[in-house]
Amino acid sequence: MRIETVSTARSFGGVQGVYRHKSRETGTDMVFSVYLPPQAEAGPCPVVWFLSGLTCTHANVTEKGQFQRTCAELGLILVAPDTSPRGEGVSDDPEGAYDFGLGAGFYLDATQPPWAANYRMESYLVQELPDVLAANFPVDMAREAITGHSMGGHGALTLALKNPGRWRSVSAFAPISSPMRCPWGEKALAGYLGRDEAAWRRYDATALIEDGARLDHLLVDQGEADGVLKTQLKPELLAQACEAAGIPLTLRMQPGYDHSYYFVSTFMADHLRWHAERLAGPASGS
Amino acid sequence: MRIETVSTARSFGGVQGVYRHKSRETGTDMVFSVYLPPQAEAGPCPVVWFLSGLTCTHANVTEKGQFQRTCAELGLILVAPDTSPRGEGVSDDPEGAYDFGLGAGFYLDATQPPWAANYRMESYLVQELPDVLAANFPVDMAREAITGHSMGGHGALTLALKNPGRWRSVSAFAPISSPMRCPWGEKALAGYLGRDEAAWRRYDATALIEDGARLDHLLVDQGEADGVLKTQLKPELLAQACEAAGIPLTLRMQPGYDHSYYFVSTFMADHLRWHAERLAGPASGS
Repeated sequence: MRIETVSTARSFGGVQGVYRHKSRETGTDMVFSVYLPPQAEAGPCPVVWFLSGLTCTHANVTEKGQFQRTCAELGLILVAPDTSPRGEGVSDDPEGAYDFGLGAGFYLDATQPPWAANYRMESYLVQELPDVLAANFPVDMAREAITGHSMGGHGALTLALKNPGRWRSVSAFAPISSPMRCPWGEKALAGYLGRDEAAWRRYDATALIEDGARLDHLLVDQGEADGVLKTQLKPELLAQACEAAGIPLTLRMQPGYDHSYYFVSTFMADHLRWHAERLAGPASGS
Repeated sequence: MRIETVSTARSFGGVQGVYRHKSRETGTDMVFSVYLPPQAEAGPCPVVWFLSGLTCTHANVTEKGQFQRTCAELGLILVAPDTSPRGEGVSDDPEGAYDFGLGAGFYLDATQPPWAANYRMESYLVQELPDVLAANFPVDMAREAITGHSMGGHGALTLALKNPGRWRSVSAFAPISSPMRCPWGEKALAGYLGRDEAAWRRYDATALIEDGARLDHLLVDQGEADGVLKTQLKPELLAQACEAAGIPLTLRMQPGYDHSYYFVSTFMADHLRWHAERLAGPASGS
């Protein structure tokens, strides 16, 4: 549970930090960022997880996400993990493609060699990083929300769908809706999981819903000028699955917005307020 | 006056753009960013210039400055120029130092070879870029404000001091106060201007005030945990000069803040509101 501080900087009255630790799940050093709002000086605060997209590290949302001001207003901690294991000995796409291997872990536990050795992002995020956070930061782990962007938006959906009650509030920015049905996802699922499509369904948000997983609420923002909207993201697949399953989906199509952090940052405050409202009540089951 | 669009992205209802043009002053291509708030669709809006610090380009504040939300609220255009000429044939520090040459133009017109050929940032900003803006964007050039960070905070001060009436509102984040009296500035002024210290005084904000230049108001934020506060920035020199000259300086020392964009972004909204208030009235002389 020991962590090393990479950097800290005061931001909107709180502290934006970057930390490193040795992960038992990935077998590598892992870097993540934590924003502590001013309220964290007085006691535990709710936690919003932000999972990033292809090619990103913790740094993209930390530097460009414009979440600190609203987190400081609402008393929210924001945690941004990396998108894959990294470091010496970690396998990467043989051609160095941006959509597989480093920076493209897809938040799953790989079963195929050589990926199975280090690409264990699901276990890292579900089992290990929460303990690291609880041991080192004033986090209220009974009040967690999860969101993310693109591959990370899909990661947020799948983790929440597979772990009922763990994340009390779920949203996504321009998520991949169904990796089984888009080129990014087909490549990743085949590479990390092999050709057995039954295994794929456990890492496909739309398939998980079709197979019975549920969310209490879901907020999704999607830019209409997003260059991968029709080829990779396909929000209509998610909308159809939610409709059929009775999951209340708020899907906002945003005219003129692309896939960049200018899109994410514009709607970040809306998502944080959405999460804060849903984290404010008593914990379910308490 | 022709410009090329490098990129545009919708942001907070407006447009964050990056543009390139051939500069007659620097003899190079120059890149700058412009944020147009939603109000710019209806007509000209006031303009805030943001001058960046050592090692930066237009991109740092554009990506990390968190100004778009407040500019959209207030109807402000924000322009972020580069910090030096760049490109083939442009001289750089022979040892590649970060504090001279590329990324370190100090917003002056160099007189010494080889720098004089391209390092003409003062003329570029005062004479050329305003015409480029006026020809290509819905800018209200009777309502301009200027601010900046570190080397760029000092640039904002000197440009405003030397061009009375041009910028109706002036502020700075952690500015160098007196380059004549700090290592960064001594190196830059000697390199770009030679050993004649009389020439240096025309590019030193504190000396300009001592020599009679005036501002109507000045807002400065400075982090108390800034690593270069005592060696390079020395706000006490600026404060003493303003005091002696009767310039109303609001100098806010911010506990715990460093020199990074986490500091700049935290106080960005305050500066934009300061400028919006001072740009709201009728133009002086009108």
